[in-house]
Amino acid sequence: MNRAIENAAAVRGTTAPNPWVGAVVLGSDGQIYDGATQPPGGLHAERIAIDLAGETTRGATLATTLEPCCHEGRTSPCVDHIVEAGFSRVLVGVEDPDQKVSGKGLQALRDAGLEVVSGVQRELVEAQLEPYLYQRTTGMPWVVLKVALTLDGRIAAPDGSSEWITSEEARRDVHSLRARCDAILVGAGTVRADDPSLTTRLVSGSDPQRIVLGKAPPKSAVHPCWEVEGQLNALLPDLSDRGVVDLLVEGGASVASQFHAEGLVNEYIFYVAPALMGGDDGRPVFEGPGSATMADLWRGHIRDIRSIGTDIRVELRPIEGD
Amino acid sequence: MNRAIENAAAVRGTTAPNPWVGAVVLGSDGQIYDGATQPPGGLHAERIAIDLAGETTRGATLATTLEPCCHEGRTSPCVDHIVEAGFSRVLVGVEDPDQKVSGKGLQALRDAGLEVVSGVQRELVEAQLEPYLYQRTTGMPWVVLKVALTLDGRIAAPDGSSEWITSEEARRDVHSLRARCDAILVGAGTVRADDPSLTTRLVSGSDPQRIVLGKAPPKSAVHPCWEVEGQLNALLPDLSDRGVVDLLVEGGASVASQFHAEGLVNEYIFYVAPALMGGDDGRPVFEGPGSATMADLWRGHIRDIRSIGTDIRVELRPIEGD
Repeated sequence: MNRAIENAAAVRGTTAPNPWVGAVVLGSDGQIYDGATQPPGGLHAERIAIDLAGETTRGATLATTLEPCCHEGRTSPCVDHIVEAGFSRVLVGVEDPDQKVSGKGLQALRDAGLEVVSGVQRELVEAQLEPYLYQRTTGMPWVVLKVALTLDGRIAAPDGSSEWITSEEARRDVHSLRARCDAILVGAGTVRADDPSLTTRLVSGSDPQRIVLGKAPPKSAVHPCWEVEGQLNALLPDLSDRGVVDLLVEGGASVASQFHAEGLVNEYIFYVAPALMGGDDGRPVFEGPGSATMADLWRGHIRDIRSIGTDIRVELRPIEGD
Repeated sequence: MNRAIENAAAVRGTTAPNPWVGAVVLGSDGQIYDGATQPPGGLHAERIAIDLAGETTRGATLATTLEPCCHEGRTSPCVDHIVEAGFSRVLVGVEDPDQKVSGKGLQALRDAGLEVVSGVQRELVEAQLEPYLYQRTTGMPWVVLKVALTLDGRIAAPDGSSEWITSEEARRDVHSLRARCDAILVGAGTVRADDPSLTTRLVSGSDPQRIVLGKAPPKSAVHPCWEVEGQLNALLPDLSDRGVVDLLVEGGASVASQFHAEGLVNEYIFYVAPALMGGDDGRPVFEGPGSATMADLWRGHIRDIRSIGTDIRVELRPIEGD
């Protein structure tokens, strides 16, 4: 299963709206055959490993991070291929909360007489598939809010300039984050002020779908993009329906404040530069009214902290149950 | 010398206006005798080690982190004691920039026929005595600016409440910092708003001298304190003359801004809570105009970063040569 998890990691960010799944066939010849989900329209992880393994699947074991699908999509159901291949045993990381699967894949395998063990390395797989499991369970994209700021909490100078608060290494990390996500959302104000292209040019990886909250001027670098409007709690389910699993919100302060205030952020990633704006007239991280008193202070927990170039990268999460 | 450095570390914060010095006698009996500077009025490090070593100092070696004094202060000159004790060799970490010493101690030992080696473990000793060396060289206290803030750069809620942004462990670390420093300075506004006692009650250690910039109301917890006023560039040399080597500035935003804007901060210590104020109406770290554009941004470097309780402690320094 650990090898299947590694296989999945390699394709994260390339599979939406499908989950990034890894599989392994432990063939009857003692060899190992790897599979990972191909981009949409391509094959699922299990199918790739099965095709590679050929006749060695007879009486063999298949390990897959996510419950195999049992419905006809753009590809035929993995469950059928697994049964045809003559496996005797299937190891599964987590059940698929997608209502088209949701235990029915496991049941179909058991009905066909295979031994099925579910929950193998469950914690690791749940951590890896966290955004997918969240999106399929809630019907909302997993939202990552990224902020680049000074240690005194400013994202731009009073004149609006912000290039570059953080180091080249931090900006490259942002591009890796973009490559991992299905879509990036910014406000129209940011498009007008900074004219960002929102691509992954500093790393190899696919460019995410670009989304502007409001209208982007016709000649903006952000085109082609989706222009959206309205309340976030109506907008986000719509983005989920359009296949956005991982949504990266890159600001500015007004958009960040809306997502934060409505409790829609699943993961905050702050790139903190060892720099000080030194006054109260620089642009703040968030706009508008915040916590009125200490009793209202939003508290999270630090999931990860590390140095990136000259900067600090802090991953902040809501406290479980909030 | 490493043992002398350890001896010095143990008395840091208890010796002002004297430097925290450590010494070791490598006695003729093969034993080691330790010394460290006592509180003002007590003995210097060398003298303590010499007294402990007794007759084993004849022909032996003395190691001391700082050049021995050669002037009559509250104690008689260490140089005289070293010569009388009959040492053959003296190892010194760094020369004392104090103009009453400044090479004259080393010269007196050499004139008496002792072998003197200066600069032993110089970098380690310079790092340990950094505030003292700075103060004696510039005539200004070494200024540490401490800030407790949220990850979005706010030190209090809009209503002024700030108890407690950071965790118990972070507050205990602040008290250790207070114990290390000779004096703490806050603005009169902070005294009126928070009525802090500015003691080291969470750790063992001496309470620093308390200094208020402005007038503290008569019944404030900060009394007894020095009340000071005027321009910082006149005030700081005065504090240095009054024996303040390490000065801890604890705020608020206006006082912090003055020290930062005038380039008077030698060490920034930020305790960053995994919390978000979420708006632009909370109290900022700094007040007034800051960097107008990115070209003016103050950039430092991170000297140390670590977790304290649920918080992050970041030590930021000006870039050398600024």
